[in-house]
Amino acid sequence: MVNADFEIRRSLLVGETADVYLQRTLTILRNEGVNPVVALEFSPRRAGIFCGITEVRGLLSRVLPESGIEVWALSEGDPIEAGEVALRVKAPYSSVGLYETAISGILAQCTGFASAARECVDAASGTPVLALGARHVHPDVAGILGYSAIIGGCVSCSTIQGARLAGITPSGNMPHSLSLLLGGTVQAMEALDKHMPQEVPRVALVDTFRDESEEALAVSRVLREKLRGIRINTPSTRGGATPDLIKEVRARLDLSGFRHVEIMVSGGLNPERITEFVDAEAPVNTFGIGAYIAATGPNPFHVDIHEVDGRPVARKGRIPGITNNPRLGRVM
Amino acid sequence: MVNADFEIRRSLLVGETADVYLQRTLTILRNEGVNPVVALEFSPRRAGIFCGITEVRGLLSRVLPESGIEVWALSEGDPIEAGEVALRVKAPYSSVGLYETAISGILAQCTGFASAARECVDAASGTPVLALGARHVHPDVAGILGYSAIIGGCVSCSTIQGARLAGITPSGNMPHSLSLLLGGTVQAMEALDKHMPQEVPRVALVDTFRDESEEALAVSRVLREKLRGIRINTPSTRGGATPDLIKEVRARLDLSGFRHVEIMVSGGLNPERITEFVDAEAPVNTFGIGAYIAATGPNPFHVDIHEVDGRPVARKGRIPGITNNPRLGRVM
Amino acid sequence: MVNADFEIRRSLLVGETADVYLQRTLTILRNEGVNPVVALEFSPRRAGIFCGITEVRGLLSRVLPESGIEVWALSEGDPIEAGEVALRVKAPYSSVGLYETAISGILAQCTGFASAARECVDAASGTPVLALGARHVHPDVAGILGYSAIIGGCVSCSTIQGARLAGITPSGNMPHSLSLLLGGTVQAMEALDKHMPQEVPRVALVDTFRDESEEALAVSRVLREKLRGIRINTPSTRGGATPDLIKEVRARLDLSGFRHVEIMVSGGLNPERITEFVDAEAPVNTFGIGAYIAATGPNPFHVDIHEVDGRPVARKGRIPGITNNPRLGRVM
Amino acid sequence: MVNADFEIRRSLLVGETADVYLQRTLTILRNEGVNPVVALEFSPRRAGIFCGITEVRGLLSRVLPESGIEVWALSEGDPIEAGEVALRVKAPYSSVGLYETAISGILAQCTGFASAARECVDAASGTPVLALGARHVHPDVAGILGYSAIIGGCVSCSTIQGARLAGITPSGNMPHSLSLLLGGTVQAMEALDKHMPQEVPRVALVDTFRDESEEALAVSRVLREKLRGIRINTPSTRGGATPDLIKEVRARLDLSGFRHVEIMVSGGLNPERITEFVDAEAPVNTFGIGAYIAATGPNPFHVDIHEVDGRPVARKGRIPGITNNPRLGRVM
Amino acid sequence: MVNADFEIRRSLLVGETADVYLQRTLTILRNEGVNPVVALEFSPRRAGIFCGITEVRGLLSRVLPESGIEVWALSEGDPIEAGEVALRVKAPYSSVGLYETAISGILAQCTGFASAARECVDAASGTPVLALGARHVHPDVAGILGYSAIIGGCVSCSTIQGARLAGITPSGNMPHSLSLLLGGTVQAMEALDKHMPQEVPRVALVDTFRDESEEALAVSRVLREKLRGIRINTPSTRGGATPDLIKEVRARLDLSGFRHVEIMVSGGLNPERITEFVDAEAPVNTFGIGAYIAATGPNPFHVDIHEVDGRPVARKGRIPGITNNPRLGRVM
Amino acid sequence: MVNADFEIRRSLLVGETADVYLQRTLTILRNEGVNPVVALEFSPRRAGIFCGITEVRGLLSRVLPESGIEVWALSEGDPIEAGEVALRVKAPYSSVGLYETAISGILAQCTGFASAARECVDAASGTPVLALGARHVHPDVAGILGYSAIIGGCVSCSTIQGARLAGITPSGNMPHSLSLLLGGTVQAMEALDKHMPQEVPRVALVDTFRDESEEALAVSRVLREKLRGIRINTPSTRGGATPDLIKEVRARLDLSGFRHVEIMVSGGLNPERITEFVDAEAPVNTFGIGAYIAATGPNPFHVDIHEVDGRPVARKGRIPGITNNPRLGRVM
Repeated sequence: MVNADFEIRRSLLVGETADVYLQRTLTILRNEGVNPVVALEFSPRRAGIFCGITEVRGLLSRVLPESGIEVWALSEGDPIEAGEVALRVKAPYSSVGLYETAISGILAQCTGFASAARECVDAASGTPVLALGARHVHPDVAGILGYSAIIGGCVSCSTIQGARLAGITPSGNMPHSLSLLLGGTVQAMEALDKHMPQEVPRVALVDTFRDESEEALAVSRVLREKLRGIRINTPSTRGGATPDLIKEVRARLDLSGFRHVEIMVSGGLNPERITEFVDAEAPVNTFGIGAYIAATGPNPFHVDIHEVDGRPVARKGRIPGITNNPRLGRVM
Repeated sequence: MVNADFEIRRSLLVGETADVYLQRTLTILRNEGVNPVVALEFSPRRAGIFCGITEVRGLLSRVLPESGIEVWALSEGDPIEAGEVALRVKAPYSSVGLYETAISGILAQCTGFASAARECVDAASGTPVLALGARHVHPDVAGILGYSAIIGGCVSCSTIQGARLAGITPSGNMPHSLSLLLGGTVQAMEALDKHMPQEVPRVALVDTFRDESEEALAVSRVLREKLRGIRINTPSTRGGATPDLIKEVRARLDLSGFRHVEIMVSGGLNPERITEFVDAEAPVNTFGIGAYIAATGPNPFHVDIHEVDGRPVARKGRIPGITNNPRLGRVM
Repeated sequence: MVNADFEIRRSLLVGETADVYLQRTLTILRNEGVNPVVALEFSPRRAGIFCGITEVRGLLSRVLPESGIEVWALSEGDPIEAGEVALRVKAPYSSVGLYETAISGILAQCTGFASAARECVDAASGTPVLALGARHVHPDVAGILGYSAIIGGCVSCSTIQGARLAGITPSGNMPHSLSLLLGGTVQAMEALDKHMPQEVPRVALVDTFRDESEEALAVSRVLREKLRGIRINTPSTRGGATPDLIKEVRARLDLSGFRHVEIMVSGGLNPERITEFVDAEAPVNTFGIGAYIAATGPNPFHVDIHEVDGRPVARKGRIPGITNNPRLGRVM
Repeated sequence: MVNADFEIRRSLLVGETADVYLQRTLTILRNEGVNPVVALEFSPRRAGIFCGITEVRGLLSRVLPESGIEVWALSEGDPIEAGEVALRVKAPYSSVGLYETAISGILAQCTGFASAARECVDAASGTPVLALGARHVHPDVAGILGYSAIIGGCVSCSTIQGARLAGITPSGNMPHSLSLLLGGTVQAMEALDKHMPQEVPRVALVDTFRDESEEALAVSRVLREKLRGIRINTPSTRGGATPDLIKEVRARLDLSGFRHVEIMVSGGLNPERITEFVDAEAPVNTFGIGAYIAATGPNPFHVDIHEVDGRPVARKGRIPGITNNPRLGRVM
Repeated sequence: MVNADFEIRRSLLVGETADVYLQRTLTILRNEGVNPVVALEFSPRRAGIFCGITEVRGLLSRVLPESGIEVWALSEGDPIEAGEVALRVKAPYSSVGLYETAISGILAQCTGFASAARECVDAASGTPVLALGARHVHPDVAGILGYSAIIGGCVSCSTIQGARLAGITPSGNMPHSLSLLLGGTVQAMEALDKHMPQEVPRVALVDTFRDESEEALAVSRVLREKLRGIRINTPSTRGGATPDLIKEVRARLDLSGFRHVEIMVSGGLNPERITEFVDAEAPVNTFGIGAYIAATGPNPFHVDIHEVDGRPVARKGRIPGITNNPRLGRVM
Repeated sequence: MVNADFEIRRSLLVGETADVYLQRTLTILRNEGVNPVVALEFSPRRAGIFCGITEVRGLLSRVLPESGIEVWALSEGDPIEAGEVALRVKAPYSSVGLYETAISGILAQCTGFASAARECVDAASGTPVLALGARHVHPDVAGILGYSAIIGGCVSCSTIQGARLAGITPSGNMPHSLSLLLGGTVQAMEALDKHMPQEVPRVALVDTFRDESEEALAVSRVLREKLRGIRINTPSTRGGATPDLIKEVRARLDLSGFRHVEIMVSGGLNPERITEFVDAEAPVNTFGIGAYIAATGPNPFHVDIHEVDGRPVARKGRIPGITNNPRLGRVM
């Protein structure tokens, strides 16, 4: 069930992104005629949500020989403990050694993103969470960010690439630019409604110019039943969105008869701030998370040889021999 | 002086890694016949070392029209303040709007890496610093990591791609695997010495099996003058490398006449731990940094329209009009 | 130079607000025929700005005999140290004993208010400070609050009584009610301008309905040169006023040509928050302080007999005899 | 059941203690011919014990018209939550607008005092608590302090005025002065016993000159059965009263046969220190509280218009319309 | 059941180690002809394990008269509360007064050692604990240290004297010196095995020269079944012993077939660090504690006269009369 | 200049207080015929005041051979750094090995006491400090405690043995017992004055029964010029002695003409509390320190072999070879 959409770049395959000493090691071992079957184990430094194994399996299926190998792993999205073995590859060293850097990098980065997403999803206690942080990472991993966040529990992400990797539809409404260029939020939403197909939900960003509840009411009065929701993204220079603000906007919308208009909150959210909204019972319909997921660092993976041609070995500081973990399933 | 080596991927150019609402905004504006010249300003949330502008300029040179535009920016590697405008693009919205996500993503990620590298370099007070963290990031940004770390002040990095982007030679010695597969550190270094060209420095990793100073002496006795140095990377399960350990290994090497053998320290280093070594006057010749640089999150960039067809505008919470910054230079 | 405006109430003179045991003590001593000349010393628990002596002198001039007495005191508004003697009354016990409660109460409360005001004034570093907290204290001390705040350095207060005691003009602009009842801030200011004499400054409260800078511009466009300033009192449910908000409003007013319109900030201010505005160089013209001054508790005063008919005495825990303090001046 | 004893001063009725902008607002609205029925809601910033409504009702009965109004409120002494509506006045703005400052001031100050008293009463776990802090507040609110403390749960207070407002008898024993002027605590108590009527309890302050237990025994030996109790008020320069001291004095009194002599403790007490006595099971018969209640600041009340002529309205940051609170009862 | 082994030194008996004012007091009282029977009570400042009473009883049996006395005490090793009376001596002052210093000193020091030992024993949750800290105290109390630690729950101590006082066998293995002087740990253990009687357990200190697990395996391979265990005492300059290190050494011993070799851990242990090993389920067979027990200060004892010739008395700050404690038993 | 008064006990000489493995090591080495000259170095864990070397030299002069040895050391009372070598013994292992435990124990305990004393002396800024804590340590080290405290800077100690070791006169006044047994402090001092020789200073403990200043005045009135001073040792149940109490007692003594009476303070003092008295300029003439010095734990000493028959060696974690320290002087 490997997803074909994970493109394996040439630079990875030829080892340009590997630690250079791995290249040298392959040369030395070939010259020495040494090529045992090794058992490599990968385990994360911190607990979290395991992610990246789909892409890693795509890579391994390209580089490992067809027989004489074993790959054991947890599944994409499984919870994982600190130090738990999440992936074990048994293969001739010459076929896997060069990819140690790439495999641990993919797992570290994806597991980091997915774990941060899960923290937000847990804090939201059932309210849907969107991943919006593509603007905080290099475009070459923007798709990976969206994919991993969805593995972690987000309902969607903001990029086409991330959504396609995860097999769903991307999510978005309108940028501040649209209001600024068309002269107002009402004008922006009228234009959006005129030119966008029906399946694009009409969601207005209501903090561009005026007070949030004023602008929410103005847009509601114009789009009426067609308005799906509003997004409140108040900048921190204006105090950010607060539970009380959401309650007030909800009350003013309801008083004017716009009970169907949903409220999405974004802007500097993290698990602690989400919890404040949940604890205050603020009527939020969707949370949008940007930097928290994108800026959570990778969860580094240890990589260690635990067996050489069937003999238990280990460098100092590790326990020799295969590490028992009944949760692993054989995947190759 | 744009570096041709930054490959601009197709997915970026067609907007698959952009926030999807930017795609929609372009459609709406085209249908409405609206396409003003806008001034977009990019500024980081935190202070640091500005990085990524070389790659961004490569992108802009591909997508902006040849005339009627202005691009002002700080230089690669400049220090930058929180909130300071680091890049200003004046161009028709239709040519730049779709790339807002990518530009801020490149700057956020590269500035994050470069700033973390600089913290280490500053802490090291003149001792050279290597960037080793490729194993902690997705291979698609492993080169970017190495490049940014070098912009931040590292003397080299561990990947071929990162080093090539920065125009230098990659750096590496040997992995634990080599000792494990060849049966010992001495054997590993003998093989390395036999098969590697002269320009690869002989640096032995001495914590694989035995006590660090024992192993350092054993390797020294075999390679003698050819040994350039040793690397101590003691795992935290054995207490990690400490200033006292380094002093003791230095003393034992000197007592045995190996004053020419250099000591490189790595393993869980960060600015605080580097400072401990420096304050203790531990005789370290090189620091190798892995996770600290790789796991430091991006430094998010704000992107805001401050002018539309020459008129000062701004969304609520920003000050309308071009933001004055005499440090910016015109680059396009 | 005792100010005639401090009304001495009958309940104070007859001792209804005194600790009841003082009443009993007077009876006992009279029956015993004991009435020595005592030296009573008053000293505050904490450092601060001494206030209330004007009212106390008014009281003493009503109740002390014309001769055979001595009153030494610091002046209204003097800085005072913790434990420093601020007032010494030498008089027959029968004429002063009953008023120990009232004198220490006046000094404690007024010194508490004046000291809190001074903290704000010091934090404001030259920007004028108004005392607005009458709504937080019982109306019977609202005038005392305003008076004490002015002694502490405020330029004015919000009540007629407080201002009259201090010999200045009260200060105020408009309540939220006016906007709510007349349907908008612009309407409110037009009405105020129509019906108020010229000497009442036109200052608009701009956070009643809409975004502060929108409303500030709307009012400015109508009153133009006649508008003296605006007051920003954003409720904490909207994040409160921030230095960045003030800078943005100032920039938008200036861009529209309203450089003469001043900005007053109020709402939950205290010395720490004032310092944030000052450190950020936010262009504030006046600070308005409510609860901080009003809610700072009194600074309790110790009252002790240190001499009886010229003999040094003291209760346990105090040092017998007159306490030397060269800063005291004889006032009666 | 409004208590006739709350004197409404002329300065309050004519608005001299009101914020001056309320005076101006009345003038403007009269000139504009605007006088709607408004619903004003009062709610405290912090949780506590609601107090002051008796005095407020006395004021409203003087200034509101006889018909066409509604007043809803909690009862004197009710517990109240932060932000809960405690008082709602529906009346023509012209009859109530001027008194917004006074009403919120009375409620803020009285609720502050009563809440602090309740904290002490709760900490005392059944041991009676007296309010002694008149010497820390201006004499114009000394009665209000005593009244509010009794509403909060104190069994009595030290001033005649406070006790009369609450309909009880004031409480007091003897000041240090009496011992100092009569030459000793024994002499002071003999004189008090000779000249005071039987209903004044004989309670000796035993820390004026000598060790507390020595002095307690000396007074007990003289007054014997007539001695009701002793008060220990050790100054902090002598370590203050401690649970161990109380236990020791109790033991020495009991050993000498004075089991009937009660012990009252005072001097710098607050809920934390009371809890120490209670937790240590120190045999205290009464706690006397001075500065803690008097120096606790007011609990500020928000005042907001939520309805104008039956229409839900509210300033930004508040929710329009009457706030539901089933705990309110109609009082006018 | 007083243990004859506690030697009472002459300097103690003649009062050379007593506070000199006790000598003077005896002289004064003799000259005045005053020698009442007093009740002296001893109580510790902190809770802990009571120790020293055996030695104190030996002293009292030397100095008290044979009749007319009473001694009540807790038993050696009883838990004790802060302030609880642990010893009461009723005797003529002339026979006991001089020994107040010595009795409280013995109890304070022994109770301090025993209590610290008990903290370690409790933390170890059933794993045996040895007391090794003789090198941290003056040799004149080294035996007392070992004895008290065993009373506190340790299974043995490192000195002959301490073990003899407690009636058990001392415990020890080998010092680093032996390896250094014989040229290696293997040589040291071979020599030890050759020259020591069978009842001395063969326990090797394995951190003198090489990596702990290397050295453990080397010694195991030579002594095989005769090896009882290894001791790991890694210096803090090498990170100290950690739970992970113990697990790894255990695993490597087991892999090589040395399951019978026990592991003893020592070096900077305290209750917190022991708890870390226990919580991590590290396979430790014995904990050795040095400085923690030896460096824990004495638990000071208060000594107070509570009765003189049957009359309850006490200095200020104490409660007169015998203090009730049903846990005391009469021992003389 | 070794002081003959340090008695070397038999149990020490025969090794009963040594770690038992040292006994075994001597046996093994003798049987193996191994007895090299070793260089043993002793260094403390923490900085402080070096103490115990006099006693150690007495021991070494008993056990080392007359020639072929070298002993280098700091002097008694020298300041010492953490980790600094304070003593180096070069001798045949057979003559010194058994005494490693005793030497480090003497140095650890004495250095601990002396360092704590010095902290108090430093805090006292010139006011003399007495060491009174014999009651907190085992009588077998009470003399060592006093001696070490005097080396640390105390002017005297309370035991005859401690004072004799240091070559000075012990110091003491009177215990609470004397007042309790003679019925009062005045009676106690009259008896002391009657029976003690002139050279014993008359210093009264004034907190036994009554208020300190009362009792101080009472004693002063009786002994007048003969009274040297008073000691205030107020128990913590009465708040302990405070700077304000000392000032008050001084003032009351001076007012009554007793300017010659000195004030000594004791009871729970430590460097922090001493500093409070000094900072408050309380008129203290002497500080008496009990538990702080006695209860400060030993300062553990590392002992390591750094040379064997002239060859640099060291266990892992130490640097081989003699450690250079120019501050050491040759003493044997």
